[in-house]
Amino acid sequence: MDGGTLRGVFAPTLTPVDEGLRIDAARWIEHCRTLLANGCNGLCPFGTTSEATSFSVDERIDALEQLTAAGVPAAKLMPGTGCSALTDTVRLTRHAVDLGCGGVLMLPPFYYKDVNDEGIYRSIAEVIERVGDARLRVYLYHIPPQAVICFSLDLIERLITDYPGVVVGLKDSSGDWNNLHSILTRFPGFGTFTGSEAFLLQTLRLGGAGSINAVANVIAPIQQRLFEDWEAPQAEELQATINQVRPIYQGLSAITALKAIVAHYHNDPEWARVRPPLVELDAAATQAVVDRFAKLPVAAEIAI
Amino acid sequence: MDGGTLRGVFAPTLTPVDEGLRIDAARWIEHCRTLLANGCNGLCPFGTTSEATSFSVDERIDALEQLTAAGVPAAKLMPGTGCSALTDTVRLTRHAVDLGCGGVLMLPPFYYKDVNDEGIYRSIAEVIERVGDARLRVYLYHIPPQAVICFSLDLIERLITDYPGVVVGLKDSSGDWNNLHSILTRFPGFGTFTGSEAFLLQTLRLGGAGSINAVANVIAPIQQRLFEDWEAPQAEELQATINQVRPIYQGLSAITALKAIVAHYHNDPEWARVRPPLVELDAAATQAVVDRFAKLPVAAEIAI
Repeated sequence: MDGGTLRGVFAPTLTPVDEGLRIDAARWIEHCRTLLANGCNGLCPFGTTSEATSFSVDERIDALEQLTAAGVPAAKLMPGTGCSALTDTVRLTRHAVDLGCGGVLMLPPFYYKDVNDEGIYRSIAEVIERVGDARLRVYLYHIPPQAVICFSLDLIERLITDYPGVVVGLKDSSGDWNNLHSILTRFPGFGTFTGSEAFLLQTLRLGGAGSINAVANVIAPIQQRLFEDWEAPQAEELQATINQVRPIYQGLSAITALKAIVAHYHNDPEWARVRPPLVELDAAATQAVVDRFAKLPVAAEIAI
Repeated sequence: MDGGTLRGVFAPTLTPVDEGLRIDAARWIEHCRTLLANGCNGLCPFGTTSEATSFSVDERIDALEQLTAAGVPAAKLMPGTGCSALTDTVRLTRHAVDLGCGGVLMLPPFYYKDVNDEGIYRSIAEVIERVGDARLRVYLYHIPPQAVICFSLDLIERLITDYPGVVVGLKDSSGDWNNLHSILTRFPGFGTFTGSEAFLLQTLRLGGAGSINAVANVIAPIQQRLFEDWEAPQAEELQATINQVRPIYQGLSAITALKAIVAHYHNDPEWARVRPPLVELDAAATQAVVDRFAKLPVAAEIAI
């Protein structure tokens, strides 16, 4: 099976915004470069952690062009392109292909909740047919907690069968090991990424492609070591260290918590800003998150 | 309280699409005109029943311009303008105001599910501030089954208080009479529309503005009689007759079922087409829905 060429640790990059809530391209490009220089094999601009769906198609296209124009290699990018409107998904996907992106991360249309596999199949198939480009590599984005709409195992199989070499992978952000395990074992060689960093080692052991998850915005280096040394004796310990991060923002939005951490280490309060409907952490929550993060072993090697 | 000027029976208009899945403006405009001539006081183009979120901002703007250019009075329109991206909502809302629309029906941003009232408040407030036009009239769109994100009673109160004369009404598509009852009694004079046709009479008795619901695409005349005669002895009977429609497509999508009915009565199969992720009814389901509808008393007065 063609599982695509993208492998390793990917960050769904945080998207800094300026006082007008516009994408702050300068801070964003710097963050992307830093991640690629420090542990990330590639990036997913405009994933869920990037507040992707809070920006218009034009804003996303414009930002991505600035990113590649600044020298970030498009081949290392897997931008999110799935929207609720078919025509928006087509436009973003075509643009990513034309830029030379290594793949696209495709949400299913996420407004209507009473849709079936046939409808989701038609949505993805229609995008692939309309883009009609042999360079297209689609990674399905399974994230029930936000999209609600799911990629079932049968639907994944149908898409792989009908679009071999195009539908090459998937990101599983269900947080459900049983689901991820089923995908990894039923579709060997498929480019399966875990959306939960806690499953990185198990994913690699079962032949998965890597991880795409929020904490890579701040702890990519240790994730990279695990990706490289997953067969080494220290792998379990690396995984355990990685697992310490998420509990520090338990009950809070990962996006706002991670932006607060980046803002702290850059000594740059601007970085904490989010676009509505998200809300920044208040001062007390920020302090608590930052304090808890600082006590972790990974804090010593933060490279942002 | 300023409850806006829009009152009565509104149809969230079905959106016919051509073989290229583009909005079929000719069929759409004809349908809109027919509805206004036969029982509808106004229309909500690009509501949930309209497959609104399946079309891009550009497609929606272009269609709305064609509709008003064709002579449909903008003052009778309350187009849906709420998107997941703040900037998209601003653009659609500003466009609707510039066209002279009587109001806009505003979904909350619907991708992120772990948001709070403060975040939804900021989203709506930011749109109002950015549009910055005294002509703007916002109807909040509460539809938990699809958007998941809700307008709580406290959030509604905060928006009414901070934007008097701008936030003038709401459509409640919760399907929950207790919620609608709470809104009607807590905010007298507010422009509250029921999204469930079954609550039309109760809504009018409690001073609500009217109804915005899918079945108005095919049975607006009897809904109009109820709106006019809600204090008359036959009101309960009219309501009971209206209530017979929804069960005929129980377990199916209202959108595909209603498009199938319109296609049947126009003898125009093109009308049944939907944009993915929706899927047309198959032949057997279509026949069953059409047969059940034909047996209803309201079928005799269908005007489409």
